[in-house]
Amino acid sequence: MDRVLRTTHTSRLSLSQYADGIFAGDRSVLAKAITLIESTHRGDSAMAAEILEICGDQTADSITIGVTGVPGAGKSSLIDVLGRHVITTCQEKVAVLAIDPSSRLTGGSILADKARMPFLAASQMAFIRPSPSGVGLGGIGPRTREVILICKAAGFRTVFIETVGIGQSETSVRDMVDFLLLVAIAGAGDELQGIKRGVMEVADMIAVNKADSSNVREAEKARAVAEIALHYFPPSASGWTPLACVCSACTGLGIGEIWSQITKHHGMLRQNGFLAQLRREQGLAWFHESIDRSLKQMFVSAEAVQKRLADIEKEVVAGQTTPLAAARQLLLLYDSDRQRRAKKRESLL
Amino acid sequence: MDRVLRTTHTSRLSLSQYADGIFAGDRSVLAKAITLIESTHRGDSAMAAEILEICGDQTADSITIGVTGVPGAGKSSLIDVLGRHVITTCQEKVAVLAIDPSSRLTGGSILADKARMPFLAASQMAFIRPSPSGVGLGGIGPRTREVILICKAAGFRTVFIETVGIGQSETSVRDMVDFLLLVAIAGAGDELQGIKRGVMEVADMIAVNKADSSNVREAEKARAVAEIALHYFPPSASGWTPLACVCSACTGLGIGEIWSQITKHHGMLRQNGFLAQLRREQGLAWFHESIDRSLKQMFVSAEAVQKRLADIEKEVVAGQTTPLAAARQLLLLYDSDRQRRAKKRESLL
Repeated sequence: MDRVLRTTHTSRLSLSQYADGIFAGDRSVLAKAITLIESTHRGDSAMAAEILEICGDQTADSITIGVTGVPGAGKSSLIDVLGRHVITTCQEKVAVLAIDPSSRLTGGSILADKARMPFLAASQMAFIRPSPSGVGLGGIGPRTREVILICKAAGFRTVFIETVGIGQSETSVRDMVDFLLLVAIAGAGDELQGIKRGVMEVADMIAVNKADSSNVREAEKARAVAEIALHYFPPSASGWTPLACVCSACTGLGIGEIWSQITKHHGMLRQNGFLAQLRREQGLAWFHESIDRSLKQMFVSAEAVQKRLADIEKEVVAGQTTPLAAARQLLLLYDSDRQRRAKKRESLL
Repeated sequence: MDRVLRTTHTSRLSLSQYADGIFAGDRSVLAKAITLIESTHRGDSAMAAEILEICGDQTADSITIGVTGVPGAGKSSLIDVLGRHVITTCQEKVAVLAIDPSSRLTGGSILADKARMPFLAASQMAFIRPSPSGVGLGGIGPRTREVILICKAAGFRTVFIETVGIGQSETSVRDMVDFLLLVAIAGAGDELQGIKRGVMEVADMIAVNKADSSNVREAEKARAVAEIALHYFPPSASGWTPLACVCSACTGLGIGEIWSQITKHHGMLRQNGFLAQLRREQGLAWFHESIDRSLKQMFVSAEAVQKRLADIEKEVVAGQTTPLAAARQLLLLYDSDRQRRAKKRESLL
């Protein structure tokens, strides 16, 4: 996988080189294509759009699994053994996208992710990719949907999205995945550790991790508690009944069970038409998100806005200006910036 | 309150007439100002912005309460008696904003809301206002934050936001309010009716309504169930422990208790600094939302986009085009529309 590191941030390929590489499942080309898609440089957006267009809409024959839980719950290790299970048992290629607010697109972060997923890092059947910060300048989130699409086009049809949480202001992972697995660990007493508020209710399965050596009893207790809590939630629209299990990334306990539930869930949603409905909803949300993102991207990349944005955000937080006055000020700057540019273009013609 | 109906959609006032009326607490002027703010006509936006600017940022000395639950849970009746409690006990003015996807800005809808809130509809101390559909053309949500602001400026410092649910694609009510009250009713067995998935975990209090006549025992059972479910949730960041109660809008049972918990919660958040932090976060979110809304508003009001948007949404849902290709097509239309307009403006000068 060293190739990924070496080829990231190098010179561009041609469109057909990108397309050929992606469809051939070449991981180094895939990595470069993702870098291009995640680029915020104006010059990159046209090529990125063309690559995505070529990748088409390969959503039907694939499965995306969100894996969430606070740091320390053991998400990466669990994904490593789950991914191994998928690769060895189903002979399917696996991609892992890690969305971590603290991570940046650096070699260091990629290395850290790989150290926590030793099997997948060494496997020719796996592709690991950290995504940059959840929310960038101006509140623009990562292009996770696009990255999923391109991974699928490259034949990685099982995609794990690892995330520390699904907040309301971040791009919501729940909206992008077929199955949401919540990873928790046993706490003191009958508590569940590693759960962010608001996530439990939208999870399809809760896995109490680290059920190994002296921790087995506590994990089993925490699982029972989670099971009871799930019982009190209203039924999900898909008809799926969420469940709780114990597992261990070390001993492999529960891994087969988790994967069999994921495939069972997928089969059920496929059969009752909910998967098709989900895809339609995801498509419409994606369409609107894509427009919003482009409009916002044009906005934040305007010179006048770039100069002022960070400061004005600080002023809003400090209460020195109202949110509406600040927004209005920045929109006016944007408008005059655009007009100045248009005139300049006109005079050059 | 007939005045509200008569003056809505009538001719415009001057800025000072709006300002004077709002600060005097004149409900008919308030209603007209809200209509202006909710207007999507280009010509209205400058005046609306000026009115909002004058209203300033009166967020400190106020309380906003979200009241959610599915239709039939009795939200309106409960708000009516809670509002009466606030008016008669605290001598405070009360505003009720109803965000209902099925409601439209029509007299009929206002009348329906008022029929369900007889006390508040007749009170000089109350202002009732339905908001239009949760999400409009192009995914633009209602201007709830702005309407709250202007109600506060008019002296309605206790604001109830009534909503059928807080979905992820709608503008989230949870982000706008200080306290979220979930209204449920007893179901068969130990079930809780009237709860949408994902809401329970973010509620500050669950009120099992309609605990009157033959229904008292069932309500008490449902409350016990809700209490147990709440016990299994992770603690909230503010330090508040959510709780469950029974209540009845008919007999007044539990109304004093609910209000005392709301004020207790407010006092706690004020004391531990969480309210100030909440206001800062709400301010920054508002700033970004306001920019996003303006950018999207400009987009959807472009002639070329308006002609194509509804059809292209259908094509995306039907799978006839990919979300990204559709977004790109519409953005190109928008861009040429803008350039044509700019040239036209130029040639007129």
